[in-house]
Amino acid sequence: MSSLAASASYPHRHLLGIEGLSAAEITHLIDRSELFVSQNQGADKKGGSLRGRTIINLFFENSTRTRTSFELAGKRLGGDVINMSVEYSSMKKGETLIDTAMTLNAMNPDVLCVRHPESGAVKLLSDKVNCAVINAGDGTHEHPTQALLDALTIRRRKGSLRGLVVAICGDVLHSRVARSNIALLNTMGARVRVVAPRTLLPTAIDRLGVEVFHDMKRGLADTDIVMMLRLQTERMAGSFVPSIREYYHFFGLDYAKLAVAKPDALIMHPGPMNRGVEIDSEVADDIDRSLIRQQVEMGVAVRMACLEVLAENLTTRNAAAVEAGR
Amino acid sequence: MSSLAASASYPHRHLLGIEGLSAAEITHLIDRSELFVSQNQGADKKGGSLRGRTIINLFFENSTRTRTSFELAGKRLGGDVINMSVEYSSMKKGETLIDTAMTLNAMNPDVLCVRHPESGAVKLLSDKVNCAVINAGDGTHEHPTQALLDALTIRRRKGSLRGLVVAICGDVLHSRVARSNIALLNTMGARVRVVAPRTLLPTAIDRLGVEVFHDMKRGLADTDIVMMLRLQTERMAGSFVPSIREYYHFFGLDYAKLAVAKPDALIMHPGPMNRGVEIDSEVADDIDRSLIRQQVEMGVAVRMACLEVLAENLTTRNAAAVEAGR
Amino acid sequence: MSSLAASASYPHRHLLGIEGLSAAEITHLIDRSELFVSQNQGADKKGGSLRGRTIINLFFENSTRTRTSFELAGKRLGGDVINMSVEYSSMKKGETLIDTAMTLNAMNPDVLCVRHPESGAVKLLSDKVNCAVINAGDGTHEHPTQALLDALTIRRRKGSLRGLVVAICGDVLHSRVARSNIALLNTMGARVRVVAPRTLLPTAIDRLGVEVFHDMKRGLADTDIVMMLRLQTERMAGSFVPSIREYYHFFGLDYAKLAVAKPDALIMHPGPMNRGVEIDSEVADDIDRSLIRQQVEMGVAVRMACLEVLAENLTTRNAAAVEAGR
Repeated sequence: MSSLAASASYPHRHLLGIEGLSAAEITHLIDRSELFVSQNQGADKKGGSLRGRTIINLFFENSTRTRTSFELAGKRLGGDVINMSVEYSSMKKGETLIDTAMTLNAMNPDVLCVRHPESGAVKLLSDKVNCAVINAGDGTHEHPTQALLDALTIRRRKGSLRGLVVAICGDVLHSRVARSNIALLNTMGARVRVVAPRTLLPTAIDRLGVEVFHDMKRGLADTDIVMMLRLQTERMAGSFVPSIREYYHFFGLDYAKLAVAKPDALIMHPGPMNRGVEIDSEVADDIDRSLIRQQVEMGVAVRMACLEVLAENLTTRNAAAVEAGR
Repeated sequence: MSSLAASASYPHRHLLGIEGLSAAEITHLIDRSELFVSQNQGADKKGGSLRGRTIINLFFENSTRTRTSFELAGKRLGGDVINMSVEYSSMKKGETLIDTAMTLNAMNPDVLCVRHPESGAVKLLSDKVNCAVINAGDGTHEHPTQALLDALTIRRRKGSLRGLVVAICGDVLHSRVARSNIALLNTMGARVRVVAPRTLLPTAIDRLGVEVFHDMKRGLADTDIVMMLRLQTERMAGSFVPSIREYYHFFGLDYAKLAVAKPDALIMHPGPMNRGVEIDSEVADDIDRSLIRQQVEMGVAVRMACLEVLAENLTTRNAAAVEAGR
Repeated sequence: MSSLAASASYPHRHLLGIEGLSAAEITHLIDRSELFVSQNQGADKKGGSLRGRTIINLFFENSTRTRTSFELAGKRLGGDVINMSVEYSSMKKGETLIDTAMTLNAMNPDVLCVRHPESGAVKLLSDKVNCAVINAGDGTHEHPTQALLDALTIRRRKGSLRGLVVAICGDVLHSRVARSNIALLNTMGARVRVVAPRTLLPTAIDRLGVEVFHDMKRGLADTDIVMMLRLQTERMAGSFVPSIREYYHFFGLDYAKLAVAKPDALIMHPGPMNRGVEIDSEVADDIDRSLIRQQVEMGVAVRMACLEVLAENLTTRNAAAVEAGR
């Protein structure tokens, strides 16, 4: 079957991060996603490739939009989707995470889509289960489907990622979106810049293969893509409130700062936005230049592709296991 | 296809309120609902008319019963249904409502069923999206599917709404149910009374085309239908507790007050009931005269009809758009 | 149809408890469950026997794992599954439970799976509705599907329950799991012991047909099965914390205590476990002897069987009603 052959191009059981994936593997996932875009725009959005499969969304952190995106993806492929949200605060660490994983694993799911507030927790969990695992965001580590949907969104507008100058701006320190995007863009041959105050950069930034700027006008000069990050304003409540105005002044994206980018530079944001904090409302809603809504739309397509590819790989893997067992 | 022809009778993209609908449009929706009643009572409740469609229940206000009714309706028609409940308190107004709407819209739903604590919010949202929107209750404004299910319930018992005397009793001030029912009943030729203390009537009551009473015995005299409204007791906590007993004394429906209505007068309540507050328990459970359970049952059928009609209209609209684009 | 004939072996409308079921009825449900085990392990877990049926999970008490198990069971049989969780604290007792039941009943569900913190509440509810009801745990009373899944798990390992020595250990007082298991094991010809401190035994323990021990080494001597119960540590917070260490010392299952059981004795726990409280982590994870994960897996199969049998009985019952009505 051609789909089995195709899945050979992403020969992994899980999707835990972009780090370590090859350009061919990334391209394979994006190509697959492309197929679902028009299907999702039609009246009949329903496919059958996950029929009989069980997908469990296991969220240790609230995120209705990401959970909804995965849920839609699974259902539109004909799978049975179960949502399970676990309050992390009510859990003891480590041991209990594994117990939850083993309990779900015993229910024979095919794919677990897991979000967890701690970096590395999803990998830990994936080692304990028989099914495929998609990392739906772990701590400040990775959020691979976000990077894939960003790549698909860019590619549909620019044709290719190769050679594009992409500035990732804002709270890089706390951002798994930044980390996954940096890995993907580097692998695909884009030139990546980060633009952030020193206090919002990880110490290891020098090892990530990016150009670092602390000034928006310099960092945005001649860029093709401006990716804004969400500022975790909840960490700046109370006494720090004045700094939000200052933050916006120096790092919020407005037309004045955008003026130094290429004339056809495009604007992205992973959402949900803090309008007037990291981005000006008018810029966010710019019909020609803002890709923010397309990102959300591509998210469903990307998650459909990832679910389908991993489910195919399970089939191949099980067939191989049976073959080996003869 | 005959179904396309039929849907021509409700030629709107959304269902935001009863106000402004014609008698023919209302009748069309009720007629359609009738078809689902016996289907829902059988062993195979499943149809396929929404197969491949995505319905999102977007609730900014808790309501398990209404949400469950819409969820069942969507699933029984074969659609993929996603529940999204957003805590309104955690949102900033206006802007963020629109961002939530635009995010969901980007996921290509076909119908959004929206409940929101502010009057007008659902209309605002419907202007921003490409899909169809059903108002599942907005503030004190409208709750159109409730009025339709009430109308279906009455029609099944009385044959027609025309000429019936209907008394709507209790907390009219805070009631979107009252508002939608007044609009529907007036349009369908019933004679509408409201019976309430002055403090629980909106100032604009004179413009709604109803007879106003402040005394149950007068207001209920010779009525065919007594519609009780839920009293928002949560607003009367603490110091006002004694007034509940007084409220029940003057405005709670019991057999003594009901005695002045027609001998075959029927009793309705949108639920959930405050037994012993706005209605006596025995009256509520009166097998012959209380329609309260039928109202719930008709609710699923009405929501199936509305979802189906709006989905058909989307198809027609898109076909027309393609035609126009040639 | 053979399935209708088969369902004649469980001729009840509801599954409210194990108490009162015959060995043949229990065996019938377990045999049925067996059929789903391998189906759940394959790539296509989807059957169609509940297509068109509506299952509502009505949980007045939180339990993501039990709810998920029922949800998976219903979906894998092709049914439409609705989750409804009601905060018990926000309800008035009795009356409102019935109103909730009647409201759901009016939506024409086929099966309600109900969990409630009060013993007897599920039976009360089942008397008011037309559909089938499965007790998913009521207070300290019964949790029949747990006992059935435990029985299936044991039978798959030991071939039969007859003559096995089973020790149920720990907080018997608060445990509906213990109560359902005692009833089932007695009916199926196992020899049941309970091992617990006097303070964690119900006063009526003498009437349950079990041997009572207050010492693990005596109670576990020559047992085939050791069933540990979850300790409600939440009731022992604060000043009682030291007693947890003491509890573990005397009643926690470790290899030292297990040494007196039969060499092939097997370990069970209904989950979620308090590792280091009622059970040692190594014992819990013992690949050869711990059945804890198999219990979870069998849980889905058992719930599929129960749903299917009750749905078949509804069909038979309705056919009989039609026949009688001629």
